[in-house]
Amino acid sequence: MPDKSLLETFPTPEQAGDAPFVIEHVAEEFTSLCPVTGHPDFGEVTLRYTPRPAAAGGVCVELKSLKMYYQSFRDEGIFYEAVTNEIRNDLVRSMQPVWLQVTTSWRGRGGIRSVIACEHGDVPGHWRGR
Amino acid sequence: MPDKSLLETFPTPEQAGDAPFVIEHVAEEFTSLCPVTGHPDFGEVTLRYTPRPAAAGGVCVELKSLKMYYQSFRDEGIFYEAVTNEIRNDLVRSMQPVWLQVTTSWRGRGGIRSVIACEHGDVPGHWRGR
Amino acid sequence: MPDKSLLETFPTPEQAGDAPFVIEHVAEEFTSLCPVTGHPDFGEVTLRYTPRPAAAGGVCVELKSLKMYYQSFRDEGIFYEAVTNEIRNDLVRSMQPVWLQVTTSWRGRGGIRSVIACEHGDVPGHWRGR
Amino acid sequence: MPDKSLLETFPTPEQAGDAPFVIEHVAEEFTSLCPVTGHPDFGEVTLRYTPRPAAAGGVCVELKSLKMYYQSFRDEGIFYEAVTNEIRNDLVRSMQPVWLQVTTSWRGRGGIRSVIACEHGDVPGHWRGR
Amino acid sequence: MPDKSLLETFPTPEQAGDAPFVIEHVAEEFTSLCPVTGHPDFGEVTLRYTPRPAAAGGVCVELKSLKMYYQSFRDEGIFYEAVTNEIRNDLVRSMQPVWLQVTTSWRGRGGIRSVIACEHGDVPGHWRGR
Amino acid sequence: MPDKSLLETFPTPEQAGDAPFVIEHVAEEFTSLCPVTGHPDFGEVTLRYTPRPAAAGGVCVELKSLKMYYQSFRDEGIFYEAVTNEIRNDLVRSMQPVWLQVTTSWRGRGGIRSVIACEHGDVPGHWRGR
Amino acid sequence: MPDKSLLETFPTPEQAGDAPFVIEHVAEEFTSLCPVTGHPDFGEVTLRYTPRPAAAGGVCVELKSLKMYYQSFRDEGIFYEAVTNEIRNDLVRSMQPVWLQVTTSWRGRGGIRSVIACEHGDVPGHWRGR
Amino acid sequence: MPDKSLLETFPTPEQAGDAPFVIEHVAEEFTSLCPVTGHPDFGEVTLRYTPRPAAAGGVCVELKSLKMYYQSFRDEGIFYEAVTNEIRNDLVRSMQPVWLQVTTSWRGRGGIRSVIACEHGDVPGHWRGR
Amino acid sequence: MPDKSLLETFPTPEQAGDAPFVIEHVAEEFTSLCPVTGHPDFGEVTLRYTPRPAAAGGVCVELKSLKMYYQSFRDEGIFYEAVTNEIRNDLVRSMQPVWLQVTTSWRGRGGIRSVIACEHGDVPGHWRGR
Amino acid sequence: MPDKSLLETFPTPEQAGDAPFVIEHVAEEFTSLCPVTGHPDFGEVTLRYTPRPAAAGGVCVELKSLKMYYQSFRDEGIFYEAVTNEIRNDLVRSMQPVWLQVTTSWRGRGGIRSVIACEHGDVPGHWRGR
Repeated sequence: MPDKSLLETFPTPEQAGDAPFVIEHVAEEFTSLCPVTGHPDFGEVTLRYTPRPAAAGGVCVELKSLKMYYQSFRDEGIFYEAVTNEIRNDLVRSMQPVWLQVTTSWRGRGGIRSVIACEHGDVPGHWRGR
Repeated sequence: MPDKSLLETFPTPEQAGDAPFVIEHVAEEFTSLCPVTGHPDFGEVTLRYTPRPAAAGGVCVELKSLKMYYQSFRDEGIFYEAVTNEIRNDLVRSMQPVWLQVTTSWRGRGGIRSVIACEHGDVPGHWRGR
Repeated sequence: MPDKSLLETFPTPEQAGDAPFVIEHVAEEFTSLCPVTGHPDFGEVTLRYTPRPAAAGGVCVELKSLKMYYQSFRDEGIFYEAVTNEIRNDLVRSMQPVWLQVTTSWRGRGGIRSVIACEHGDVPGHWRGR
Repeated sequence: MPDKSLLETFPTPEQAGDAPFVIEHVAEEFTSLCPVTGHPDFGEVTLRYTPRPAAAGGVCVELKSLKMYYQSFRDEGIFYEAVTNEIRNDLVRSMQPVWLQVTTSWRGRGGIRSVIACEHGDVPGHWRGR
Repeated sequence: MPDKSLLETFPTPEQAGDAPFVIEHVAEEFTSLCPVTGHPDFGEVTLRYTPRPAAAGGVCVELKSLKMYYQSFRDEGIFYEAVTNEIRNDLVRSMQPVWLQVTTSWRGRGGIRSVIACEHGDVPGHWRGR
Repeated sequence: MPDKSLLETFPTPEQAGDAPFVIEHVAEEFTSLCPVTGHPDFGEVTLRYTPRPAAAGGVCVELKSLKMYYQSFRDEGIFYEAVTNEIRNDLVRSMQPVWLQVTTSWRGRGGIRSVIACEHGDVPGHWRGR
Repeated sequence: MPDKSLLETFPTPEQAGDAPFVIEHVAEEFTSLCPVTGHPDFGEVTLRYTPRPAAAGGVCVELKSLKMYYQSFRDEGIFYEAVTNEIRNDLVRSMQPVWLQVTTSWRGRGGIRSVIACEHGDVPGHWRGR
Repeated sequence: MPDKSLLETFPTPEQAGDAPFVIEHVAEEFTSLCPVTGHPDFGEVTLRYTPRPAAAGGVCVELKSLKMYYQSFRDEGIFYEAVTNEIRNDLVRSMQPVWLQVTTSWRGRGGIRSVIACEHGDVPGHWRGR
Repeated sequence: MPDKSLLETFPTPEQAGDAPFVIEHVAEEFTSLCPVTGHPDFGEVTLRYTPRPAAAGGVCVELKSLKMYYQSFRDEGIFYEAVTNEIRNDLVRSMQPVWLQVTTSWRGRGGIRSVIACEHGDVPGHWRGR
Repeated sequence: MPDKSLLETFPTPEQAGDAPFVIEHVAEEFTSLCPVTGHPDFGEVTLRYTPRPAAAGGVCVELKSLKMYYQSFRDEGIFYEAVTNEIRNDLVRSMQPVWLQVTTSWRGRGGIRSVIACEHGDVPGHWRGR
């Protein structure tokens, strides 16, 4: 069962100057179950975000905890759109980032490949539209 | 014969916050007939859209019904441009989405590959131009 | 000899609503002759345009006639730049489209590959720059 | 020794209407020498520009002369940045184009691949950033 | 240990006219250590910047010194985010460039590939978002 | 319904000397129906063979008739293995070739891609195993 | 738990003449668990075999049952080598094929990608060594 | 009209020792006409051969003359199989090589790509089957 | 310092029947030092082998220990050829396999990429020559 | 001028056991001059060989000296076939290897790409035919 308590964070590294940075984690091995047929779905989850700065108490998600969190969907019967929104919501709650983008890309089912993209905050234009 | 009654929808999943999301379905195995020669045409249909939110009664197209709808073109003699517009129109009527984009990409005929792109509503710039 | 009388058109398909559409034809097998050396040139011609709507008497170029028109350059000694402009001009005259873009991409000669791009009307930014 | 006198030009082809066009020449086989070690450098030179129109006395660089000009760098000890600027300057002087862009892309040296991009005039945004 | 004293610079080449240029160095063979497990991390570092012009005392980083500087991270236990910021900061201090962008791309760890991007100054939009 | 009467042949071209030749036709746009679910299957059919020589009354399959023959499977409910064997048998009967190989490659169904290969006569080793 | 009772078979299709055929099924979405860490493993399973002919009572594995059988490894803690051997053994028992080959290809773990190949019977040389 | 008198040769370079060598020329820009429809065909011609040694009066085909010879097919209405055999025969007569292989690969016509391969003499196994 | 004591093994899994199997581990992130210049070398190590069967006391190398063993070359100044032989020798001593093959593939140094391949025992032909 | 005195060698590393090894060096940046036109030719040189064992006084070519040797062809007017044979002969004389193979692959000239392959000694079949 998706378990957001698995998510751990660490303080944003301090930066000289003012420029925010962008972090991208691409998890190529995501799997959950189709809630209708029970068959497994396989996809790739791309997370991009800009953390709040250290001075503002900003945090980043810890990589291994992110992996464990993703694995907690393994036995969950859940639609593509719900997976994507749930990951977005859990990560937004954990990090309160400046902006965040979650895109899931699913291997074909019945000859149709699907991508679901959702966002939080003001995603810079050059990171959108895949 | 293309049959839009095959299209089924489900309510847009609820989202925390305000960010709309984008759904893309790429059907790699589309076929119809050339209305002039009767020979089969083979193509790929890419659908992208943002559903209206749940609170506004928004709906999403159900994936298997979309597949069945696409299959209903199999014996239809129809031009590239008409296929693309008809799919757009039927999906707009079914879902009343915020915006929607249909792009068909056709394998070569006589050494010429073709792409037809049409839209509904205000498609964000970063999703256009393929 | 390039023969624009080969170009045939058909009325733009009617569309529900107001959104214009984009048509792309990529001819991978174009050949003409170098006017200086007489050696054959080989290239690819990409045409993109938005036809005027049906209500405004708009027309689209017919695919097979486009192929025959391109074949009429086979024995013509003509520079890259002139090929590209001539195709643009002939198609603009035939269709009076909203906008139109012709890009020719030529295989290497003397280790240099070339691309020539020209336009008519107000080409949307997301379709430019290849 | 780089020899800009090798560059020859021809008048810009006349165009119906008003739309400027874009010319791209990609030379895949460029070589010069490292001024420090004397070892050869290998790269690719991409030139893009819009010539002034015929009516304004505009000219285009002739393809074979461009090739000979590039070959004149073969025995020159010269840094990446200087190669790129020198090609830009020589071509700007020869053609006085509306805008021009020269990008050199160098194969790895010590595990580092390099790209140098420079411009003249007002390069349209969709042709920049490679 | 990362050693910024290894970085050497040379004056920006003089340019005719006014157009700034862009320099990109892609180091495909970067390695450091995970500060938690001590296991090696492998990545690619992409540096892009526009140097201040020669007339303003601008300098460029010397390629071999950049390589030696990158090698100085080999035995350092350091997080992805910190590597990226540290490289940015050291290069900004060495060159005081008009703008600068550092992107690190890391091979998978636990099935997750990561990219960290940071900037200094006003990076032109067409060079952002990878 | 598969219709082998559509297959037409022409005499093997005469050859100087003794070396047999090999003919390969790859049809990228094959479709039939799953006999169980009625859903369309999409695949690619690769035919390779050596015709008997002209002196022995050998014939080759005519390309357009081969295309029409393949199209006659469009509405047929038939298993992958049966398609492949039926094509092999029909072509062997039409041409009596020295050897012949038919390989069908099917796009994924339920996450499994399939290939079926069958042969007639003594296929040279270097043309086998795909 | 791997469950070979899920495997169903159907009689080998009859063939004119004598040539055996080869069947390949590539399952791109296989997952099991590492028996040591409990973390999921992701891989691709390639099955190739030649069934005994119909006249000898030969059978082929049914595609959907193969998919269900592969899914039965989802919660199994099992080593790469054991997965591969178990699949081989179960399929050999179900079909008694002329020859059979099972190759599993696993995504990286700790920077190391692995492939395990095993066989039954006399696999033709041109189908071996991947 | 195909004109074998265009083919010129030069003596095989002398070699120390005894090992024969292999020469491959891939012409990516071949075009002829379909004898039935008159439409152009586009293909690629791969020639491989081992010349007789210098001591035995062996010769190699001169590269520019080979190009001119291929160009002489430009206006010829001729089948794929005949093109391939004619090139083989003309080159065998010109060079009397130890062995020779001609493979033509044709872009799709009606959704079918074709390859024709023919040989002369004893082609080593590792150069066959493409 | 390369440390073969890091290598751990486990007993070959039992197999029904008689067919040996093949195990391949590709380590994409290998690094050592050039013994002459001290600069790092980066490469990929491919190991393939057939273990002795369980009944004969055969063993397989444990994956994590293999990774640690490879990491022990990180600070070693050693030539490409010596790395490859040393890995071969250490693995042969640890496992006494039926056959074993080690291939190292090195990224370019001075524009030259290198591959070193060595073997032990009777490597089947279809696994050789990369 | 090609200068074989640049070639330096080092003794073959000692090997436990009896298995010979294979060394491959791919030089991607080779250039010489066309002896007829004086224009530069660009190619890639692949060298593969098995050195005689240490016990037999065997030697390997040193990588940097190989690079310098290749660079000595930069100003040489020489045919493809002669380059390939000369490299073979010089390396055979320097190393007296068990077997050796030199393959040069040249970028297109007049639309024709060429490959020249020559050998010395008994090259194992799995390393031939590119």
